Amino acid sequence: MKVAVLGVGTTKFGELWGVSPRALVREAVKEALIDANLKLADIEALYVGNMLSGILGRQENLGALFAEELGISCPAFKIEGACASGGLAVHNAILSVLAGIYKTVLVIGVEKMTDHKPEEITSALMGAGHDEERAAGITFPGLYAILARAHMEKYKTTEKDLAAVSVKNHYHATLNPKAQFQFEIGLEQVLTSPIVAEPLKLLDCSPTSDGAAAIILSENRKQKTENRKPVFIIASMVATDTLGLAGRRNLTSILATVKAAKKAYQTAGVSPTDIDVAEVHDCFSIAEIIACEDLRFFQKGKAAKEIIKGKTRLGTGRPVVNPSGGLKACGHPVGATGVKQIVEIVTQLRGEAGARQVKKAKIGLAHNVGGSGAVAVIHILKND
Amino acid sequence: MKVAVLGVGTTKFGELWGVSPRALVREAVKEALIDANLKLADIEALYVGNMLSGILGRQENLGALFAEELGISCPAFKIEGACASGGLAVHNAILSVLAGIYKTVLVIGVEKMTDHKPEEITSALMGAGHDEERAAGITFPGLYAILARAHMEKYKTTEKDLAAVSVKNHYHATLNPKAQFQFEIGLEQVLTSPIVAEPLKLLDCSPTSDGAAAIILSENRKQKTENRKPVFIIASMVATDTLGLAGRRNLTSILATVKAAKKAYQTAGVSPTDIDVAEVHDCFSIAEIIACEDLRFFQKGKAAKEIIKGKTRLGTGRPVVNPSGGLKACGHPVGATGVKQIVEIVTQLRGEAGARQVKKAKIGLAHNVGGSGAVAVIHILKND
Repeated sequence: MKVAVLGVGTTKFGELWGVSPRALVREAVKEALIDANLKLADIEALYVGNMLSGILGRQENLGALFAEELGISCPAFKIEGACASGGLAVHNAILSVLAGIYKTVLVIGVEKMTDHKPEEITSALMGAGHDEERAAGITFPGLYAILARAHMEKYKTTEKDLAAVSVKNHYHATLNPKAQFQFEIGLEQVLTSPIVAEPLKLLDCSPTSDGAAAIILSENRKQKTENRKPVFIIASMVATDTLGLAGRRNLTSILATVKAAKKAYQTAGVSPTDIDVAEVHDCFSIAEIIACEDLRFFQKGKAAKEIIKGKTRLGTGRPVVNPSGGLKACGHPVGATGVKQIVEIVTQLRGEAGARQVKKAKIGLAHNVGGSGAVAVIHILKND
Repeated sequence: MKVAVLGVGTTKFGELWGVSPRALVREAVKEALIDANLKLADIEALYVGNMLSGILGRQENLGALFAEELGISCPAFKIEGACASGGLAVHNAILSVLAGIYKTVLVIGVEKMTDHKPEEITSALMGAGHDEERAAGITFPGLYAILARAHMEKYKTTEKDLAAVSVKNHYHATLNPKAQFQFEIGLEQVLTSPIVAEPLKLLDCSPTSDGAAAIILSENRKQKTENRKPVFIIASMVATDTLGLAGRRNLTSILATVKAAKKAYQTAGVSPTDIDVAEVHDCFSIAEIIACEDLRFFQKGKAAKEIIKGKTRLGTGRPVVNPSGGLKACGHPVGATGVKQIVEIVTQLRGEAGARQVKKAKIGLAHNVGGSGAVAVIHILKND
């Protein structure tokens, strides 16, 4: 598998009160087109990753809507898979290129969340969960708190270990001008922040965000732009698991991640130790610890202690995890997240990440999860 | 392009009060698996076409949800494009097979509409439309009434012509045991039925329906089942147009259909006169007249008079249009419709359509539309 990423773009992530979804998309797409040195007329198909527009905005048909907004009339699709909508849109766009049907494909991830009341958003997000979980009144922080408890019980993971993930990601975000929270936080600050769902505190949780990201994919060919390392997606794998936690045998691992990762490493012909930089789905601090184990960056049960030692921090570790700031500090506009992860990895592999550049980054990985692990998408990218 | 349809299945369409979406899916998939002589373990990816589950049911993540329900953990995706969600799911499943990534792919179209109040459904369906149209308080019957008025003005199409479409489709549905309305209606009955949006009356409009349909796609290879004509999809094309009518130059034609049809005929290497049987998107009677022209079954402005003469009716015409009863009489569970159209065409091309069999049917076409023409998907199928 080898599909070129010709261009990438994102809006700033954050509480963008004054900006409509249409404007977010225009901004991200404009940046990606300039980056790729392409025109809208070059785009042969459009994939949109979005989760909440139907529930929160009562607007569907986003493929046609954004095609109209951009002024193109190419085939257009909306792909939805909860918080993995962006990654799944990228996956299907890749398939369409590999099929030889569309040569140059635009993928947009977009979400506008902050126009709605917090309790509406919390309720809408449970649209990704199992109906029994919803009926029981549990929320996503609650679901991940269950995973955290299981992990703490089995591997002696501590609340301080969890907090260290947020501390690292906030540090990375200070180096990312597009991030939602460009300020550092301390361990004590996380540990004393209000409890959301014990043991998860406010600063263990990713925020509600607005934002859009766009990438342009094409057949395996060099970019038009000179003086720049071309970047290729060399694996794109998806796996699913039960929607609800009740159906799982093991609560200390996300089986969908384990399965997708195994296939992705195989397809790419690389091993976990080859990964220089990764964007992983840290919707909650515990999720990053579990992801680093399921992706085999560290042995099962060992990730927390490695992370707190700085082994995934920019400048001191390898692989650097979530240099963008991750979902925690760069922001988590759910449908945009999976696409923005690819944008970050491409930027890193090109050597264009500025202050947050991972030195000599050659191979990168993006890991996007939907629901409490019901679906996982993994992309592996490589520069040439 | 050549992708085999190995198996097909549908539930009955109708007001299925006592049946959950999960049960609808189980039933359609079971039938498709038996038909294909395959097991669930053979399925490598799942595509779900659905529009309204988010808005009406606050449930997203349907890919993972139905994978869980079926007991498989393969990659799973929800594709949404309003009433074209089913056709777009089929299209993306075809791309995934052509990409060589998934060998055997299950496509499900499903919608559960009748659990909700009519005004809720009407409002939810406007999620497919333009925000300005929604703000103006217009509904889908209103949008199609505008198209009908334009067509009547330009081509002298009459209300009787419109009514004839519904009369034909209800006749066809009497021959389809899965249809929602298995009874005939007369011209006078349509003309005197309550006005919904002038000139469209109640019996010009497709109903609110529940139902699911499933197909199994595979690489270009013979089916395992003996004594049966293999059926192949030989073209799958998508086009988009503006979401709202205000952006269109011409209201007597659906440009997305015209564009997708042109590419589909080209790819398949067939002409409109080669089509023996077609399932077209008759969400309203006027839509079938416009579709028959845009698909070039008849010259522009001539379809209405040909349809009323019986030129698309089983037994008297060619191509036979909507032998299943169409959206009008077989039913229109929106996300299921595009998949059910493929089921009907496959059944016809195999010669297994019983009382509604189109004699010597060799080439068939399915035409699925989202919104008031914002997106169109066209599939052309052929038996071997």
